[in-house]
Amino acid sequence: MSPNPTLPPSVTRLIDALTQLPGIGPKSASRLAFFLLRAPAETSLTLAEALRDLKARTRLCSVCFNITEDDPCAICADPLRDPGLICVVEEPLDVAAIERSRVYHGTYHVLHGVISPINGVGPDDLRIEELVGRIRRSAEAGQPVREVILATNPTVEGEMTASFIQRKLAGLEVSITRLARGLPAGGDLEYADEITLRRALEGRQRL
Amino acid sequence: MSPNPTLPPSVTRLIDALTQLPGIGPKSASRLAFFLLRAPAETSLTLAEALRDLKARTRLCSVCFNITEDDPCAICADPLRDPGLICVVEEPLDVAAIERSRVYHGTYHVLHGVISPINGVGPDDLRIEELVGRIRRSAEAGQPVREVILATNPTVEGEMTASFIQRKLAGLEVSITRLARGLPAGGDLEYADEITLRRALEGRQRL
Repeated sequence: MSPNPTLPPSVTRLIDALTQLPGIGPKSASRLAFFLLRAPAETSLTLAEALRDLKARTRLCSVCFNITEDDPCAICADPLRDPGLICVVEEPLDVAAIERSRVYHGTYHVLHGVISPINGVGPDDLRIEELVGRIRRSAEAGQPVREVILATNPTVEGEMTASFIQRKLAGLEVSITRLARGLPAGGDLEYADEITLRRALEGRQRL
Repeated sequence: MSPNPTLPPSVTRLIDALTQLPGIGPKSASRLAFFLLRAPAETSLTLAEALRDLKARTRLCSVCFNITEDDPCAICADPLRDPGLICVVEEPLDVAAIERSRVYHGTYHVLHGVISPINGVGPDDLRIEELVGRIRRSAEAGQPVREVILATNPTVEGEMTASFIQRKLAGLEVSITRLARGLPAGGDLEYADEITLRRALEGRQRL
């Protein structure tokens, strides 16, 4: 006998699928499923369509590895952005956070994670080699990158990743900076408010 | 400028769709969207399919109004269940909760809500007339319903709904019972543990 013999398979399947999501346990999954059962059909269908499109339409920008529908992404393709300035972040949501501060007009480089031995994430799992290649190619093309801002989170893993990248870039002719210590230690860049982020960007210091 | 100029439309649309769900704010919607972006494509597609199937495959049982894929539902169609005993509950999840207690072998009647003047829910919005009709038809068919257990939640609205149904059934030859006061007052039937529910069922009292 299944744990919920009275729930039809289609409801059980939705509850199971929702339970795979982070922060959603079996109880909230049930609540969500029954909310959707009662809501107009469009609510489920809109969500279903958005989920299908998510993977079908998005890719990584071949320049900065941000999530995008067009390659290169809107920021890399924007002639008003300074390609001589690269802000290195852990995740696409960090790009969104920095954009909201509206003081930054350079480009980005999204690592898609941090070095984390505990979670089995090494430097090769991140887009670090691609960053080195990008800086080298820019120099060869006569449009050198002047500055790399290491904007990983102010956590142990973020600092470790920043140090690793700093060593990797040691031979290249590029200034390396880190966001100013306006960021609360142990915090998460994505949750920082706009003023803190703005101060951190303006007060960035040469490493 | 949109609030997230750097997020592609397909990601923004998913975040918007997730934000429509109860208990999911813009921040957790973003987290979920980025979890799905990083997860294997199956995770999103399984969820998308489950959402599509939810409305396409489920209907209400024409006898008890529980959510089902087949009509009548598995409980109403089960010859081992006693059709002379009807347990009236607010929601399909309450059926699942009572089934887990494993002491009940009658049938159900799902109201799909409670009388709630504040939320604009009146008796006509619930399956109360259908309950009366069901009891009448059973009597006419020579298989009378002996007992109706009013298992609405022990909340003000649940009690109000139970009294209303009790008055509605006054003229009919049927015992009306209410779950015993083993249930904590102001609580929610769906969250009751199995022992509390079992005691409440066993100690039910004639109204």
